[in-house]
Amino acid sequence: MFDKILELKSRSGTHSPSIFTMLEEIPELKIKVDACFLSNPYATELFLEYFKRELIDTGKINRVLEFYPSQSSEIAELLGKNLKIDPARIFVGNGAIEAIQAVLHRYVKGKLIVNIPTFSSYYEYITPNIEVVFYELKKEKNFKLDVDEYIDFVKNSGASSIVLINPNNPDGGYLKFEDISRIIAELSYLDNIIVDESFIHFAYESSDMELKSVLPIVLENDNVILVKSMSKDFGVAGLRCGYAVMKSEWVKELFSNGYLWNLNGLSEYFFRLYVRKDFNDAYEIVRKKYITESLFFIAELQAIEGIKVYPSKANFVLIELMNGLNSGHAQARLLSDHGVYVRNCSDKIGLNGQFIRVAARSKDENEVIVNAIKSLMKLPVELGL
Amino acid sequence: MFDKILELKSRSGTHSPSIFTMLEEIPELKIKVDACFLSNPYATELFLEYFKRELIDTGKINRVLEFYPSQSSEIAELLGKNLKIDPARIFVGNGAIEAIQAVLHRYVKGKLIVNIPTFSSYYEYITPNIEVVFYELKKEKNFKLDVDEYIDFVKNSGASSIVLINPNNPDGGYLKFEDISRIIAELSYLDNIIVDESFIHFAYESSDMELKSVLPIVLENDNVILVKSMSKDFGVAGLRCGYAVMKSEWVKELFSNGYLWNLNGLSEYFFRLYVRKDFNDAYEIVRKKYITESLFFIAELQAIEGIKVYPSKANFVLIELMNGLNSGHAQARLLSDHGVYVRNCSDKIGLNGQFIRVAARSKDENEVIVNAIKSLMKLPVELGL
Repeated sequence: MFDKILELKSRSGTHSPSIFTMLEEIPELKIKVDACFLSNPYATELFLEYFKRELIDTGKINRVLEFYPSQSSEIAELLGKNLKIDPARIFVGNGAIEAIQAVLHRYVKGKLIVNIPTFSSYYEYITPNIEVVFYELKKEKNFKLDVDEYIDFVKNSGASSIVLINPNNPDGGYLKFEDISRIIAELSYLDNIIVDESFIHFAYESSDMELKSVLPIVLENDNVILVKSMSKDFGVAGLRCGYAVMKSEWVKELFSNGYLWNLNGLSEYFFRLYVRKDFNDAYEIVRKKYITESLFFIAELQAIEGIKVYPSKANFVLIELMNGLNSGHAQARLLSDHGVYVRNCSDKIGLNGQFIRVAARSKDENEVIVNAIKSLMKLPVELGL
Repeated sequence: MFDKILELKSRSGTHSPSIFTMLEEIPELKIKVDACFLSNPYATELFLEYFKRELIDTGKINRVLEFYPSQSSEIAELLGKNLKIDPARIFVGNGAIEAIQAVLHRYVKGKLIVNIPTFSSYYEYITPNIEVVFYELKKEKNFKLDVDEYIDFVKNSGASSIVLINPNNPDGGYLKFEDISRIIAELSYLDNIIVDESFIHFAYESSDMELKSVLPIVLENDNVILVKSMSKDFGVAGLRCGYAVMKSEWVKELFSNGYLWNLNGLSEYFFRLYVRKDFNDAYEIVRKKYITESLFFIAELQAIEGIKVYPSKANFVLIELMNGLNSGHAQARLLSDHGVYVRNCSDKIGLNGQFIRVAARSKDENEVIVNAIKSLMKLPVELGL
């Protein structure tokens, strides 16, 4: 089973094989907890409640699947009202990844600073017009971005564009609103400042856990692009919902030249739900519940000997294996012995050492994960291989 | 209600407003039959049966919506086995439109011949590197493409790329397999021959109604690109499923540089169904049933006075209003008086006259459509406005 798991991973390149594919290829596999997948399971439950009540029980699902979805401009209108921004600045997409691809392929030229470790699409989706320059987040500094050093680095690099993922993936490092505001202000001469807030719903600056998005800054700066995935916070990755806020000329150009039916019936339904007060009120409760439980989960992990858990304000943690165990083997061992699927980070540029990434799940699942990692750490390293 | 309908149409540009949007904006509207929408309703029923039995009743829908879909290369593997072609040549997309956009944006340069009337994306999705040259299908020739004249036209045009939609949208004109083979052979020097077979499941050359795809030719010619939507024949437009067969270098480049999760959970489910024998056997029955009923429907329409029904081997017909009635007003009248939604073709380049496009639906719905058009034609033109 080890070999099959390792082979599947190598075929998937810089991303993880989907659960569907894994189960297809290794039918004997029992995945109990998918801690590779970065999403709020309580939000999934909430969405599924609405989905069943409003689409399945009523039979409305039939037309959602049969007919063409609305054009994205219609959905942008709805989002614009909700986010209180001009709909002409909203690109609604088949996942945030579609917006990332559109912006990188069409509008970014010259040097692009990407902080590593990172989500690989930011350097894989480039064109011959882009030169990626890596800015290394240092392990010795717990992968925390040093704002002043970063600003100097960008200024000296001759870059015209930067990407900031906040909180960052795969380490969960968080830049406070005042820090990110300062970066944007100091680097206002840049052509493009891409801020990816796909994990922002899991971050907090005070115990009230209120959201701190850069959205107000985007509205005042035409060179700031906000990227937002809905897959993680709302737990609906299979739907493919995301959007980006950018200058209206770009949105106009993109939609006049493509992206005609890039939503699907269910992602349209999601966006219509997302702008409803009843849904959002219910969502806020499960969002805060999940943050609270994730805090507890991370504290439990930090107490395990033999690993180092890096500081995170996302719904996942980067864990360094300090006992000599290889990350690929740790992944395979957790999966085959405990049914716990974690992210082996051996493919991540900028990570020197043996790292896995572990997502917080529901309370019960978190217990399973913690116990699995405890068992793994108790094995003699030779047996763990 | 007229004004609202006309305004919605103008906001949607060269495509029709979705039913969802229409009903949202005009709640008093009762759409009984959507004859704007080009799909096989029996195939929708078949898909929904599987969907309910396999995903809803089992609860599997939860993980389909929660988790990331498989990467497209995994689905290309499945399709490759089914279509008996190298999976490395298959681009699986968020609807065929995504493949059209990818090919036009990245690989077509120079003069591109587009036959008009046509599906507008083929000239809207161009880049500054493309010059579109229209080849006019003539009303006097019933929009039938004259193969020899077309070949001469292309040769003399200096074009490097052509698009053939077969059967063509919006008129349903069909090129026989031997004709399209001849075009491809005679124009083998071209860089790109895009053949869009999104409606091929509705066409037939003999009474056994067997499919006649150019797929075998694509496999022998690297410059032929086959585009295939699943929305129409399988009646699942809300899922967004399509694919294209093209040279493997392109597929490799596209997937290494984008399109990471361009399927969604349900389009993945559809493709897994599409390669199953049980589903395909059941589908073939409803495909042929629908063709038979569509033949009957078209014959009924042809008997109505005051309109001209152009020859079609697709699941729709182009109708010219010969009594002086304006097509926009005909559309609004059919909708408000009969709940029948048809496509007003006033925006279609290459159509001189008053045209509507009407799709075949289920047997009962076809009756409603025929009676609605009969009533419309009996109205004095002044009252019809």
